[in-house]
Amino acid sequence: MTAPDLREQLRPLFDPRSVAVVGASNTPGKWGNMMMERPLKGGFPGPVYPVHPSADEVMGHRAYPTVLDVPESIDLAVVTVPAPAAPQVLRECGAKGIRAAVVISAGFSESGVEGEQRQAEIVTAAREAGIRFVGPNCNGMWSASSGLSLHSPTAPEKGRIAFISQSGAFGGSLIEAASRQGYGVSRFVSTGNQADLNDADYLEYLRDDPETDVIALYIEGLKDPRRFLETARRVVETKPVLVYKAGRNPVGARAVHSHTASLMVPDEVFDAACRQFGLIRVHEAMHLFTLASALSEAPLPSGHRVAVMSMTGGQCVVTSDSCAFLGLDVPVLDEETQQRLIPMLAPHAPRPRNPVDLAGDFRDVRLFSQVADILANLPYIDGLIVSGPGGAGGDERTRETAERMATIPERTGKPVVGVGMRRMADEVSSRVFREHAVPSYETPEESARAMHALATYAAIRRDLHGE
Amino acid sequence: MTAPDLREQLRPLFDPRSVAVVGASNTPGKWGNMMMERPLKGGFPGPVYPVHPSADEVMGHRAYPTVLDVPESIDLAVVTVPAPAAPQVLRECGAKGIRAAVVISAGFSESGVEGEQRQAEIVTAAREAGIRFVGPNCNGMWSASSGLSLHSPTAPEKGRIAFISQSGAFGGSLIEAASRQGYGVSRFVSTGNQADLNDADYLEYLRDDPETDVIALYIEGLKDPRRFLETARRVVETKPVLVYKAGRNPVGARAVHSHTASLMVPDEVFDAACRQFGLIRVHEAMHLFTLASALSEAPLPSGHRVAVMSMTGGQCVVTSDSCAFLGLDVPVLDEETQQRLIPMLAPHAPRPRNPVDLAGDFRDVRLFSQVADILANLPYIDGLIVSGPGGAGGDERTRETAERMATIPERTGKPVVGVGMRRMADEVSSRVFREHAVPSYETPEESARAMHALATYAAIRRDLHGE
Repeated sequence: MTAPDLREQLRPLFDPRSVAVVGASNTPGKWGNMMMERPLKGGFPGPVYPVHPSADEVMGHRAYPTVLDVPESIDLAVVTVPAPAAPQVLRECGAKGIRAAVVISAGFSESGVEGEQRQAEIVTAAREAGIRFVGPNCNGMWSASSGLSLHSPTAPEKGRIAFISQSGAFGGSLIEAASRQGYGVSRFVSTGNQADLNDADYLEYLRDDPETDVIALYIEGLKDPRRFLETARRVVETKPVLVYKAGRNPVGARAVHSHTASLMVPDEVFDAACRQFGLIRVHEAMHLFTLASALSEAPLPSGHRVAVMSMTGGQCVVTSDSCAFLGLDVPVLDEETQQRLIPMLAPHAPRPRNPVDLAGDFRDVRLFSQVADILANLPYIDGLIVSGPGGAGGDERTRETAERMATIPERTGKPVVGVGMRRMADEVSSRVFREHAVPSYETPEESARAMHALATYAAIRRDLHGE
Repeated sequence: MTAPDLREQLRPLFDPRSVAVVGASNTPGKWGNMMMERPLKGGFPGPVYPVHPSADEVMGHRAYPTVLDVPESIDLAVVTVPAPAAPQVLRECGAKGIRAAVVISAGFSESGVEGEQRQAEIVTAAREAGIRFVGPNCNGMWSASSGLSLHSPTAPEKGRIAFISQSGAFGGSLIEAASRQGYGVSRFVSTGNQADLNDADYLEYLRDDPETDVIALYIEGLKDPRRFLETARRVVETKPVLVYKAGRNPVGARAVHSHTASLMVPDEVFDAACRQFGLIRVHEAMHLFTLASALSEAPLPSGHRVAVMSMTGGQCVVTSDSCAFLGLDVPVLDEETQQRLIPMLAPHAPRPRNPVDLAGDFRDVRLFSQVADILANLPYIDGLIVSGPGGAGGDERTRETAERMATIPERTGKPVVGVGMRRMADEVSSRVFREHAVPSYETPEESARAMHALATYAAIRRDLHGE
């Protein structure tokens, strides 16, 4: 399958103009009810047709006995019927001209031999009907471009991060946590059993997805590791792929096996595969979003040499320490630059070797951007981690200084990462940095990890492009 | 010095009934102004006397030329005068009967040879005057029992965690971040140059401090490593001590040297010292508070065998995986217990080996506490990580179930840690767990780290007490 085919096939999945919920229900708590409620409450602008064998209406919308009875065209079917009824539903969908489905229904390969057989049946039915589908046994999805939320009645924050999750509920809770912190999502898929569409397909699709800048994956196991990794390698030529893999050790692997029947991949093997194929591995699930955010916002550095500038000594220490710990370089500034900086700094400030400690000097807030500009223009510095001038207050000069710092990436092509700034804080620097899409974090460790992810992806790109 | 002496000496520091600010100023931005503003705005109930050579009043309070002119008794002096004036100020404080001071003034050992000499002078002056002091070159402190905030005009959340920080501004920003997340602090000291009181003294004092359950330290270097470590060993017999040490590698050490002139301690040496003397080392600064919170709230487990129970498979996977990664045991449940649990769980739930996946089963929310009780009563389980029943909605039964789970520590002596719950969320389980002081976290990794800290401290106690 070539990518353009797949893009065409998945268009009704990610950009449907109309949806049918097969197995729609008026009973709260049932999947057929939730799958009606979510698109309706989540802001999907197109029609949602409930399909029910006998009811006249579901949730105030006129219901039809089968999809074939719906008088209008349908782009996407959401299937919540009991497993044994699913093959027939897919055949009817095919006859109706529907080309994509999300099969929520459980009772397939996750539930023993009989389920395996049923899963083979729906795959056959879908293939014959010309349908590509998500699931079965999944928790739905979200697509920002269509406004379709099947995962929650509350639409996530819209953004440029695509998230593919092998765990539905946990993936959903990550999306919610990420949204609360202001990280925006373009697509979210709870992949379920991956009977038809699998991680490799989603990667393939997202590679050319204009809505997506970064791809984040929660993985418990891989259906077809070779295809996945080879696809990933093609994808990372243009977009970074972050992966969190559960089951790092036998205990986790046991839990993974109970959950999605995935087999254990020895951790070192997965590590080596990530390195070889250019995936960026993260070690806490939420890091998927904190790092993806940086990768979707900042330009890539030319190398891994970082300058650190902060208004407090402790932040200088912990930030530069964390950078070095992760393998970034924090080069000592050349003597000429030190001599240039010394008269700019307060007399009590330590010598500006790198990190550069502004030592709480707010006499003239413009100092912040003046120092940052000098650092950004050094040929041996590839990226900057800086604290903002917001602590100086909210006057116009502070705003201008923050803007000057936030435009360093535009002016020099070098990434800037903010430290000591809360992502959701309504404080001058934080707000200005957000307006200019400069990734900012509350802690030094997060800022260092973000810069490290940028440098890592830059290195992956250089390797792949043979530069 | 014996501990009771020190407790007596530091009483006016942590529990002053009155404060004098020497060097008080009406000029915003000056330390002498901030040190007036902070106690006044931060809710200190006692009198705050400004001392100023000529002004009649400062910030609306009657000012006095010297502390000797203040007609009432003074417990604590806050010194913000220029460094050369500090020895005389301390002598006057002594004459006035003041026994404790916080010396904010800079220009001492951090600023070269002359500063070193001045520092020796204030130490001599203080010794002769019978004064113990914090600093110099520090950012103030906070004491919950006295309501005295010298670190910020906003008092932190009150709680049971004492925080001793070798970085003033960064320590302050950590306190603020911790407060926003609801972690409460009993004492905070920005230690500055530690000319008189040092980390070992604070540890010694906090050991017997009834306001403090856990001690957290941000360290860049140690003045007297042997005394510090030997003191720590005595302290950890009764209270856990968490330590974040900056300068793990040469880059961080270079920054540390610029900041507090501390010498590098090779990281492996510090690691070994922590293990030998029973300190718990953390690797991100904010972990000081997330872990201290658990240690101040939960009982200690008898061992490191953990049961994990969650309503989602992914949370089961990542939580148990994270536990095992940190070295906790997640034992497979015995066959009898599995057989007992199976009929309680939904048919689609995986076999309850441990973790136990409730698989989104909200048919009867009491299931949560029934399963938790069975796990808590297993003799080979030392602690539980559980997701709460809050997702089921906010009815009375949910509340009762959450309460039943939150009282497991009281009923069994075993710690419970919540997973998937936001600390500040106003949701049934989160609220009930907070009411019962059950530590709860949003992410599986945080929950696992918290349980690991509990098990680690329990092991330290067992080792020390030769059990």
